[in-house]
Amino acid sequence: MVKLTDEMKEQFAKMKIFPFATASKDGVPNVIPIGMCFLQEDAETIWIVDNFFLKTIENLRENPKGALYVWGPEIKGCFQIKGNIRIIDRGEDFDEMRKIVKARGEHFPAKFLIKMKITDIFECGPGPNAGKKLL
Amino acid sequence: MVKLTDEMKEQFAKMKIFPFATASKDGVPNVIPIGMCFLQEDAETIWIVDNFFLKTIENLRENPKGALYVWGPEIKGCFQIKGNIRIIDRGEDFDEMRKIVKARGEHFPAKFLIKMKITDIFECGPGPNAGKKLL
Repeated sequence: MVKLTDEMKEQFAKMKIFPFATASKDGVPNVIPIGMCFLQEDAETIWIVDNFFLKTIENLRENPKGALYVWGPEIKGCFQIKGNIRIIDRGEDFDEMRKIVKARGEHFPAKFLIKMKITDIFECGPGPNAGKKLL
Repeated sequence: MVKLTDEMKEQFAKMKIFPFATASKDGVPNVIPIGMCFLQEDAETIWIVDNFFLKTIENLRENPKGALYVWGPEIKGCFQIKGNIRIIDRGEDFDEMRKIVKARGEHFPAKFLIKMKITDIFECGPGPNAGKKLL
């Protein structure tokens, strides 16, 4: 299990939009900006809401892996998170996700809850340490 | 051949940092922020400079495909560009890339020129058109 450190959690919390990458089974990468991306209390699970995914959800169905990074003007450092995905379409967590999303706006379809279990964290700031595995 | 429209070129030019996604041959996505990313005059080729790539260059060697998006606070709209990659390590274009990079800072290693030929452009703003193929 890989958990974000307290310092990483702090930076994660400042992010508004995350670049979220997936790949098709035959390896075509896809990257989109996502807004609804919530680190859970265990610090090793991320909830991502599928409102308008198209290629992203297709990719996740055939190849359940995701990557995103934490970086921006207000962020200290830069790190990339990789993880394994489960697509959830019912149950308690799903209902909770729907409640959170619908409170933000009735027009959000909140189609699926994407649960990403963190497997690796990498440095992604520029310099000779770029790409180094942190956790 | 897929070329950026004049409107897209204008937005591309405003970007400072691009999220650049690749995938390993077995489909593990990777995404990092890149700074040296230049649209060429033909509007269908992008030059990306490898200064500090690690997983990204490994991925491109085994699976020469890339994706990035154009979006940000000063950007009108949001679109994702996908393309095929060639890694260049010598020749006229390589020398030109080195010149550009070294003028920005002697400390940049400027290891490889990554040429991305655009194959597809997709809408990536939120809403029912998200993911729609534009070009």
